[in-house]
Amino acid sequence: MSATIYPITDGGEPERQPTLEPMLALTANEMNRVNSVILDRMQSKIPLIPELAGYLIAGGGKRIRPMLTLACARLLDYPGDRHHKLAAAVEFIHTATLLHDDVVDGSDMRRGKTAANLIFGNPAAVLVGDFLFSRSFELMVEDGSLKVLKILSNASAVIAEGEVDQLTAQRQIATSEEKYLDIIGAKTAALFAAACKISAVVAERESDESALDTYGRNLGIAFQLVDDAIDYASDDDTMGKSQGDDFRDGKVTLPIILAHSRGSDDEKTFWRDAMMGRRVSDEDLVYAKQLLRQHNAINDTIERARHFGQRAIDAIAHFPAGDAKSSLIEAVEFAVARGY
Amino acid sequence: MSATIYPITDGGEPERQPTLEPMLALTANEMNRVNSVILDRMQSKIPLIPELAGYLIAGGGKRIRPMLTLACARLLDYPGDRHHKLAAAVEFIHTATLLHDDVVDGSDMRRGKTAANLIFGNPAAVLVGDFLFSRSFELMVEDGSLKVLKILSNASAVIAEGEVDQLTAQRQIATSEEKYLDIIGAKTAALFAAACKISAVVAERESDESALDTYGRNLGIAFQLVDDAIDYASDDDTMGKSQGDDFRDGKVTLPIILAHSRGSDDEKTFWRDAMMGRRVSDEDLVYAKQLLRQHNAINDTIERARHFGQRAIDAIAHFPAGDAKSSLIEAVEFAVARGY
Repeated sequence: MSATIYPITDGGEPERQPTLEPMLALTANEMNRVNSVILDRMQSKIPLIPELAGYLIAGGGKRIRPMLTLACARLLDYPGDRHHKLAAAVEFIHTATLLHDDVVDGSDMRRGKTAANLIFGNPAAVLVGDFLFSRSFELMVEDGSLKVLKILSNASAVIAEGEVDQLTAQRQIATSEEKYLDIIGAKTAALFAAACKISAVVAERESDESALDTYGRNLGIAFQLVDDAIDYASDDDTMGKSQGDDFRDGKVTLPIILAHSRGSDDEKTFWRDAMMGRRVSDEDLVYAKQLLRQHNAINDTIERARHFGQRAIDAIAHFPAGDAKSSLIEAVEFAVARGY
Repeated sequence: MSATIYPITDGGEPERQPTLEPMLALTANEMNRVNSVILDRMQSKIPLIPELAGYLIAGGGKRIRPMLTLACARLLDYPGDRHHKLAAAVEFIHTATLLHDDVVDGSDMRRGKTAANLIFGNPAAVLVGDFLFSRSFELMVEDGSLKVLKILSNASAVIAEGEVDQLTAQRQIATSEEKYLDIIGAKTAALFAAACKISAVVAERESDESALDTYGRNLGIAFQLVDDAIDYASDDDTMGKSQGDDFRDGKVTLPIILAHSRGSDDEKTFWRDAMMGRRVSDEDLVYAKQLLRQHNAINDTIERARHFGQRAIDAIAHFPAGDAKSSLIEAVEFAVARGY
């Protein structure tokens, strides 16, 4: 992967690599409160539940979704603390989907560690996911906003639909870019959008709900596009998951869609066979990466991410300048720049 | 299994086998409405979702939980229709847990048909379960009662805890009767209790919430006790699941707990080995059933069910006589009599 940085906003310091640091700094104190809620509410009298949940939750992860809820609330100058519980609810939904995803995918690695289902077993991973999901709704009910409940229950249904859609598209080399965007819009971007939008609900800024939804949705799409690109570019250490997982699982992500559509008949046959699981040796992966490079498929995937990232930034253009806005913009730049 | 009927209420017609017919008749019209909601709301633009959900939902099942919501609302003379959506939400939660249970247990059969996960795969079963669970919360949000949301989100968390607890207790012959009752109280009875209690919420009869919760909880315990007894007594056709499933899965249910505690040292060794999966041949199952008979373990499990059934009936004693009350009483008698 080339190390060239390609910042979305051209002005400023092109040599500086964007990071999540501004958002981490902005939300540090409040994230401590959110983390307390998370630790407190993953408890249960059944020891296996906090043990398994803690393995995944304590095991890292950027907690970008709850951080977005906090940063968006700051953008709106919301002075209260209702969103701490709700940010924890968002992270519980995310954690539940991770647990179920690992069962669905048979993943080996998650966040740089052995996937929870391999240590605790698929049954426990399914059931603890269910527990965290239920707990997230309990947290929302405690907050008491039917509007938040509606946003997050709808997001949860859309996520599940997106995951099923992805399952259906798996190994189907004929998957279109449009279909792929539908899938990641549902499985990833819906929760990013909801995490941002609920801050406008608690801040009682109804007129800003749509802008924050749009910001989160486009950021989520950019994030997933880059993740899918990185799967063909990272080594295992940097990604926290095994390289080539998507390739071996027959997941038809945008890099594959682009390389396939731009490839020769022989290459199309290779991609079809690979997605069907018949060409998934280490040598096949090397060849796949060569084709992706040759057809500029990774770079163009990142370019697509840059497009959605720009839309995210434009969605919050009307908010006043300040630390919160800067941190939200740099989070987008970070999401995209990871791919360069 | 002896065919002797042992009605809970001694008066009346001891020769008549109790059935769910009175409750079915009482709720038939309204169940059509509930079924419409179920069919309508399991739809999705992702075809696999209604396909899989429909396989399980159309595939039978007594829909006893939503029927209980309707019958309890009738008991309270509730004239509205809010509970139709909520009864569908209850059935969605139940269906989601069935899908996840089958993945957890690796079941072969469900409701007399091949289990959905064997036909559609574990990944689809997990994800469609998640979808139905999310949909159930969307239905509750549409209804708009935070109290109902609280009751059902709490029940869902308790169910998941009960399932994890059961997983932890699996293959542990030292499981006590108290522990077993905790498990079935959570994994089964919590949803029965919630299904009944929410009818008092929509009918705005707060003073009756506790009685209906108690009725449902005790009925749920009785129901599960008898199910666990039947697992050692039915043939495959009558139960809709494979006989001896619990035995082969190492599930330490009350019949086993009683036979083990009453058994000789050699028998204790047998039960320990069986639960560990080392004595699970067809011959072992025949021997297990002989020991259960010898120690009266099945009959005494049914007697325990009769005790909880009586508590269910007593919980609604103060309600005026009528078709609704009679149907709720006979539902309990039916639950218990299935074991005789």
